[in-house]
Order: sequence, then C-alpha cells, then structure tokens
Amino acid sequence: MSCSNLDLINECDSFPYYQTDPDLYAASISTYFELRVRGHDYALGYILPSVAEIFRNLPNWELDDDDRILTLTGGSTAEERSELVMRTLWAMKGIGHFKVLEKWRDELYPVYGKNRELLFNVERCASPLLGVVTYGVHLTAFVKKDGELKIWTPRRAKTKQTYSGLLDNAVAGGIASGEGPFESLVRECGEEASLEEELVRSKAKACGTVTYFYIRNEKAGGETRLLQPECQYVYDLELPENVIPKPGDDEVEEFYLWTVGEVQDAMARGEFKPNCALVMLDFLIRHGVLTSENEQDYIEIVSRLHRRLEFPTL
Amino acid sequence: MSCSNLDLINECDSFPYYQTDPDLYAASISTYFELRVRGHDYALGYILPSVAEIFRNLPNWELDDDDRILTLTGGSTAEERSELVMRTLWAMKGIGHFKVLEKWRDELYPVYGKNRELLFNVERCASPLLGVVTYGVHLTAFVKKDGELKIWTPRRAKTKQTYSGLLDNAVAGGIASGEGPFESLVRECGEEASLEEELVRSKAKACGTVTYFYIRNEKAGGETRLLQPECQYVYDLELPENVIPKPGDDEVEEFYLWTVGEVQDAMARGEFKPNCALVMLDFLIRHGVLTSENEQDYIEIVSRLHRRLEFPTL
Repeated sequence: MSCSNLDLINECDSFPYYQTDPDLYAASISTYFELRVRGHDYALGYILPSVAEIFRNLPNWELDDDDRILTLTGGSTAEERSELVMRTLWAMKGIGHFKVLEKWRDELYPVYGKNRELLFNVERCASPLLGVVTYGVHLTAFVKKDGELKIWTPRRAKTKQTYSGLLDNAVAGGIASGEGPFESLVRECGEEASLEEELVRSKAKACGTVTYFYIRNEKAGGETRLLQPECQYVYDLELPENVIPKPGDDEVEEFYLWTVGEVQDAMARGEFKPNCALVMLDFLIRHGVLTSENEQDYIEIVSRLHRRLEFPTL
Repeated sequence: MSCSNLDLINECDSFPYYQTDPDLYAASISTYFELRVRGHDYALGYILPSVAEIFRNLPNWELDDDDRILTLTGGSTAEERSELVMRTLWAMKGIGHFKVLEKWRDELYPVYGKNRELLFNVERCASPLLGVVTYGVHLTAFVKKDGELKIWTPRRAKTKQTYSGLLDNAVAGGIASGEGPFESLVRECGEEASLEEELVRSKAKACGTVTYFYIRNEKAGGETRLLQPECQYVYDLELPENVIPKPGDDEVEEFYLWTVGEVQDAMARGEFKPNCALVMLDFLIRHGVLTSENEQDYIEIVSRLHRRLEFPTL
C-alpha cells in the first residue's frame, strides 16, 4: 500500500464539498439532521438519522422530521443547556445506546454560536454523536542538524483507546472548554513530551490552523459514519539538539527523530493517525519540502488543509 | 478608516460561500453564465450576463439561455481553442466593447481542465471577462535584525495601470502560460527587486498557496463585478542585512524596510493592494505574529486565505 498525499487528505477530509460536487453534497446533507439549540436557527452540527432517532420524544429535545432538525429546546443559558445535554447523554450511556459513549472521559468540549458565544458544553466522547466542531492543538517539534531538517515523531501507545500504535505529531490534544489554545499546548507539551514550560512559552510558534470534516471510519472506533468537523491549532517548535522529548504519560510509546524522507515514507505507508498526517502535510508545505514542483496536487491539498466549515467556530 | 483583518479578507475574497450562506450563493450563481469548452461539461469560470451577451451568435460560441452556459464550441486542441479565443477577444477590443481589453498586454494565461490538461490560453487582461482562475507568485522578503522581524514593503508606482500607489509584496507577478511557479518567481525577483538569481534559487522557500475569489471593484479598474478567482503561490525569502531590494523596472516606486507594526498599521489603513494584504496576512499567521490570542477572526481568516475554488486548477 502506498498512499499519495491527496489520499491522506481524502481519508481525513472525507465530507463532500458543495463547490466541486454539489449533487453528492446535497445527497449527503439530505440524510442528516441538523443540530440546533432553541433561539439559534442555524446548524451546529450534522447528526445521523440513527442517532437522531434516539432523541425522539425525550424531554427538552424536539425532532422535526419534515425539516430534519433536532433542537435542544430546554435551557436558556450555557450552564442550563450543558446540564441538559449531559443528563441526556449520561442516560443514553446507561442504556448502552452508543459504543462511543463507553469511552466517557469526563472532559467537556465547547460548542459555540454565531457570535462566538458558548452555547453549551458536551462530554468529549459524545461530540461526534452531535456532529459539532471540536478543537485541538498539534505541535511539530523538529531540529536542524547540519542544515538537515529532522522531525520528532512519536508512536502512540498500543494501549491507547483510539488509533493505537499509529504515528502522531510530537504533541497533540483536545482543547477543553474554558482553556485557550496556547495554554492547552503548554499543558500538553509537559504531559505528553516532558517539555519544559519555559521552553515551550518562549519557542513554540503559532502557525495557523488545519481544518477538515471527517466522517469517522472503523479506525476511529465506535459507530462509523459519525460526523466530526475539526479545527486544529498548529504550532512549530524548533528544539535544541540536546532537548529530547520523552513520553510523560502512558500515551506515547517512543519518540523517533526522523528525516523528512523517513516521515514521508511512513505517511505513504498509512502509518500516521489520519489528522496527524494532515498536520504533517501542512508543516511540509510551510517549510518548503512539498512544493508545486514535486507535488501534483499541491493547490488542492493546501485548500483542503484549511476547509471552511459549515458551522460556527470560535 | 481602520480595516480589521477580516475586512481585508472580505474585500478580496468577496464571492459568497455556499457553506455559510447558501441562499446568497445561489442567488449570485443564478445571475451568471458558466464558461465551458465543448466536450468538457463543467464550469471553467463564471461570466456576467452583460459579457455573455456579446458572445451571442458569434461563430464558434454557443450561448444557452436556459441553462445559462456559454460554450466555446470550436477547436479541438488547446492551440485551436487559444486561437479562436484570441480572435474573438481581439475583435471585441477592436469594437471597443470592454474597458478591460484596452489594457492588452500580449501575455497569455493558461486555463486548465479537470485532468490538469491545458484547455486554452487567454490574453491576460481578458481573463476576468471569462471569469477563469489565474495564477501568480508572491514573495515576502524579510530580515531578522536583533531578533526583530522587518519586512521589505514596496510601494507601486503612481504610473502603474492598476492599483497605482498602493503597497505590494516584495515581488509579485502573474504566471504566464508554460512557465512554472518557481521559474516565474526567479524572473520576477530579478525584474522587480533586482535580486540575484543565485540568492533566490538557494534561499526562497515555497510556503503554500493563497486562494480567493475576487469580485472586481472600482479599485481594479475597468468593468466592475467581473469575477476573478485566483491562486497565488507564496514564497518567503529571508534576506541578509546587506541585500537591499531595488526597483528593477518602473513598477515600483520605493522599498521600505518596515517593522511588523508598521506593516499592520498600513494594512489597517487600507494601503495595501487587496490580494497583497492577504499574502501578508498569511505570512503573519505562519510566522506567529497573528495568533488565536490576538486575532478574534483567526479560524475564519486562515480558512478564507485558502479557499477551495469551484473550478479546475492546475
């Protein structure tokens, strides 16, 4: 198996585009339910019919089959809505409705409205059931040794709940509700790679975002076809040669210091976690490794690493 | 007047998005004609009705009012089609149909099909009449002086045909048919900034593309409302302190070496050529100057700098 870079994009940014295939897009959209909260007449996410069905006749929820909208009708503040969402999902977990709910993490993800206001928080593992945008931070750590770029590449522990054994970005994690991206990054750099706070604060450089719309497949675990639009804040960190990232928790098995060629070979073998491959592609483009001269899908890849999502973002 | 960074995006990426405003998008699209060539049943660009009307009953062209499609029916090779397009446009120029044709440059721009094959070439000044994607290169030259980033910023000559007197990127130009992006860059660096070929070849770094969909306004000159989807290949060039860019032709009045703050102030005053402001925003994002902490529209800006266009690209 050898994946092109566009194959890697297609795996992770798998939701159709209206611009290039309006018929396929319309056919897909027509099968989903929009998630809304009362008083905000726009979609916050897309929900599979099999998921929406479980909300039928539940108090505080309204399922409109004609317009295909699931609305959280209860609650008028973020706190009240969050409480109702939590209670509904916790009950569903108790009944054993969804496999994804078995991985309950007690971490809350924020869902924002059009004016960037917090509408509600949702338990992390439940966010793909609701199809809402989730946020994370991804850092690429690298060294320049005699002019050659080398990239620190961790392998995920075989015991991780998701994507076990695959390659990752040096540091990556979800942003919990109430946490800023940079603060989240500093925390994750300590937890995942044992990088000192002062080093991270002074040397990590924000370099944009990578956004995509993932349709979960069997690699993600739990129900497939769930919709997962994501926004990753990306950072670069050039490390001094004497700083060696070390797993700080049990999430990483080992860090490799790889040449660009080694990284690209592993990407072509499909060994990276799908969204980490995208962050790596963005890094290789920003650093002039991938160019219009050596990558025939350059323009499409750059655009699709920065998808404009249908839903409000922070 | 003070423009936010999102205002700068809105000025240049002014075509509506289906994702965020499907009604406005549909209303816009319904007023245009699609440009096609025979045997390729997809849009290569959008054309205003007032422009499409001029093609009515012309030999080698077919105007379909029901489906709103203008098709080049003549020619079966790129060479033949290019010749027909040229003859049609040259005749229109002779009759004095369009103001944009008065700025005839004798430069050809390529139009590609879905398999990246050249379908035809079109005179540069006529490309917005057809609404096809055009390609360019933009380079940001900078120095790091005592750890501070300074950016070489040229002011366009008051005598330039378009956007005279506005600020620009260090080097920028359109890519002619048959020329590769990097070769185009090397040539423009010599012509516009007197930068030595060897320096450019060894130090200029490809950093991606900036893509947007511009609806031409009065600043662009000629007919307004013409549609101009564009793809700019962006490059960074860190210059040694002793290399000073100098205007090599009459297109640039003067180069300033500005701090980031000076550049951002000029952007906020609307002093940059619109698409050069976008390239500068991309630079400031990739270099960690603009971050999610200091730019509230960060996620939207990053996405919109990398629009996925409706039409085939190279």
